[in-house]
Amino acid sequence: MAVPVPGIPKGTRDFLPQEAVRRNYIFRTIQEVFHLFGYQPIETPAMENLSTLLGKYGEEGDKLLFRILNSGDFLSGVPAGIPYDSSEWSRYICDRGLRYDLTVPFARFVVQHYNELVFPFKRYQMQPVWRADRPQKGRYREFYQCDADIIGSNSLLNELELVQMIDEVFRRLSLRVLIKLNNRKILAGIAETIGMADQLTPLTIALDKLEKTGEEKVLQELSAAGAGAEVIEKLIPFLRITGGNESRLEQLSEMIKASEEGRKGIAEMKELMGYVSSYAPEANVEFDITLARGLNYYTGTIVEVKSLDVSIGSICGGGRYDNLTGIFGLPGISGVGVSFGADRIYDVLQQTNRFPAGDTTACSVLFANFGGKAVQPALEFVRKLRSAGISSEIYPDNAKLKKQLDYANRRNIPYVVLAGEEELSEGKVTLKNMTTGEQKKVAVEELADVLRNR
Amino acid sequence: MAVPVPGIPKGTRDFLPQEAVRRNYIFRTIQEVFHLFGYQPIETPAMENLSTLLGKYGEEGDKLLFRILNSGDFLSGVPAGIPYDSSEWSRYICDRGLRYDLTVPFARFVVQHYNELVFPFKRYQMQPVWRADRPQKGRYREFYQCDADIIGSNSLLNELELVQMIDEVFRRLSLRVLIKLNNRKILAGIAETIGMADQLTPLTIALDKLEKTGEEKVLQELSAAGAGAEVIEKLIPFLRITGGNESRLEQLSEMIKASEEGRKGIAEMKELMGYVSSYAPEANVEFDITLARGLNYYTGTIVEVKSLDVSIGSICGGGRYDNLTGIFGLPGISGVGVSFGADRIYDVLQQTNRFPAGDTTACSVLFANFGGKAVQPALEFVRKLRSAGISSEIYPDNAKLKKQLDYANRRNIPYVVLAGEEELSEGKVTLKNMTTGEQKKVAVEELADVLRNR
Repeated sequence: MAVPVPGIPKGTRDFLPQEAVRRNYIFRTIQEVFHLFGYQPIETPAMENLSTLLGKYGEEGDKLLFRILNSGDFLSGVPAGIPYDSSEWSRYICDRGLRYDLTVPFARFVVQHYNELVFPFKRYQMQPVWRADRPQKGRYREFYQCDADIIGSNSLLNELELVQMIDEVFRRLSLRVLIKLNNRKILAGIAETIGMADQLTPLTIALDKLEKTGEEKVLQELSAAGAGAEVIEKLIPFLRITGGNESRLEQLSEMIKASEEGRKGIAEMKELMGYVSSYAPEANVEFDITLARGLNYYTGTIVEVKSLDVSIGSICGGGRYDNLTGIFGLPGISGVGVSFGADRIYDVLQQTNRFPAGDTTACSVLFANFGGKAVQPALEFVRKLRSAGISSEIYPDNAKLKKQLDYANRRNIPYVVLAGEEELSEGKVTLKNMTTGEQKKVAVEELADVLRNR
Repeated sequence: MAVPVPGIPKGTRDFLPQEAVRRNYIFRTIQEVFHLFGYQPIETPAMENLSTLLGKYGEEGDKLLFRILNSGDFLSGVPAGIPYDSSEWSRYICDRGLRYDLTVPFARFVVQHYNELVFPFKRYQMQPVWRADRPQKGRYREFYQCDADIIGSNSLLNELELVQMIDEVFRRLSLRVLIKLNNRKILAGIAETIGMADQLTPLTIALDKLEKTGEEKVLQELSAAGAGAEVIEKLIPFLRITGGNESRLEQLSEMIKASEEGRKGIAEMKELMGYVSSYAPEANVEFDITLARGLNYYTGTIVEVKSLDVSIGSICGGGRYDNLTGIFGLPGISGVGVSFGADRIYDVLQQTNRFPAGDTTACSVLFANFGGKAVQPALEFVRKLRSAGISSEIYPDNAKLKKQLDYANRRNIPYVVLAGEEELSEGKVTLKNMTTGEQKKVAVEELADVLRNR
């Protein structure tokens, strides 16, 4: 009987134990840092009403939403006479969709629970999101976001805290990173200064490519987008600013001093850089005027983190927004947040071989099962070890020893206890180190200590 | 401008920080015990192909699946001329659905990754599942399951391990529970003995109600279902067995000794009970012939856990199945597993007031923000405390002290450091205990120790 091997939807993934253990290591590390900095968890449902999601991610985003078919007789919701067209019909047969990110659900959450929250509200959220993107290498239809935001405070100390937190997370993960910072007000100041005040978006889209494509291409792109020779002439000095963070900030400060918004941006960036050099002195931070990210969204500080070991795009990013909840009718709430990309961080750790060796959550010891009367003391030992907090198991079947050792090996269990009836009568067991192959006799009462000190 | 307060889909929930912290406490406790017993994590995607899910949960279950509308021009998949009927159409416009439980995805996973797994395979999985059930008190459309299974071994030591694990989880959660055990082969033996061998399902459905409705109702129901007077007569003694576990097993053993399957079931239950009394002596275990659960599914041991403090149905359950992966073309894989119901466990902990006091993950200390020069040393202290692993934060704005203290109170932060410029010049800070209101001066270099020993 040939039954086809079952599969999973395109763009989704199963995680086998080794991968799941490694993913949990990333999530746990990030979560511990979030706790250290005083962020509290929240959770929102996988499904949101489509009225919450639609129109928040642009036209393209709307197309990438996964929609849930209404239950029961969904066809009865389709009005007579509407055109036989999928995008028309989807409005009537689906009321809910899977969340596309954690930001819009968070905004919805803040408005809905406003009176139950303590402000400034520091929350983190680590949950999957879904996008009907074309699956490709490194891009999935289900992936996790790990977001931390603080809302209800304008203080730049919050930005400092996020930089410290980013630095701490990647330090704990043993990853070398560059934390890039910018400020939307500086970008606006540049645009104003060169005469592109009303074309901030095309300007920043072009600037964003400077590192990748070089100055010439950027200027060509701007010309093609309609920027005159005079504008281009004015922009060039900005692209050629060199020096350290402080020096570049000083030069820029002089160059955009005619723009009020620009001056504000410079002041904010100077304050933040001052905090960072005093209170996150080991963080590798760079002021980068080409950094823009989802510009329309951010209103102040913008932050992005790149791996220094693997070229993979940003592995963390965020910024300040002045109007997160405005889309849901609650204006005037300022916040700042970052999102860690667990999947990309996984790839970087994998490629740089920085995951902790072995399986840090694997059992410490496997008791081989020799059947008969030898099983009883083994069960007793396992019970005692577990009471002592030492993870342990007994092989459930009286299989060949080779099979049992192979199981321990493949499970990354570092020790196997071999205890036949004879040995046990002497009060001893043989402890086999699965890494070195070494075997030694250990008195049963010392077993817990030996394993605890491994 | 009146914008309606946004909401979430019926039957789904947001979790605010206090709830999320408590849920994490449950998940973490269960996960730690799973690790202690050597179970490894896996994850499967939220969406499965509908071909994987359909037909696995009965006709009613198929209706409760959430279906994902195909992306793009889904209407083009509807064949011309099919009836204008929702259940017909849903086949053509949806290829994927949200998982309904963790068991079917696990079976699919085992078959798909068979060659990559180490057997016996001990896995746990803690993920949400979705069911389009009618929302009602205590029943949600999105809820978590926490499953642990061991497959590829027939040994009853696995059943012992699950009982030990259940006992350990509820011990750590400080919940008093009753662990009920039965065996499907015993149920089959009873059915055979009383002449209902071909009516095992109606028999067990009736037996299942014994505790709730009493003997008379059970017998009436069986009569109504077509059981003759002779059958009823034979059943009565089974309902009236009394005594301890061992005594009841002995009596039953005698009563169904003519049934070969019954004898097997008795032998299994005796072996398991023997293990449990030796190696889980503190577990509160009861042999209960009325326990059946999803009988068609289980083939050996059946287990269910009830709270002794709150009447809420089962909070954990499971059993042995001989053919988990048969539905996907891989027969002959035996396994046994349990599923912890995190939502009901939450309700029990809540109602019995057994959650740890306060927020165990809350910051240890908040530094009040007095603005000006006092901010700098505060930032320095916060940084040092965090380096020492003590979670701490500084209030980001120079707000009124009352507001800052109120924030600490509502966030369950146990200590507030008050440090004005003057005090700091003396090398001291005032530490305010938010529970007692007590304030004392502490030398700055002692702060970490004081907080660590709280």
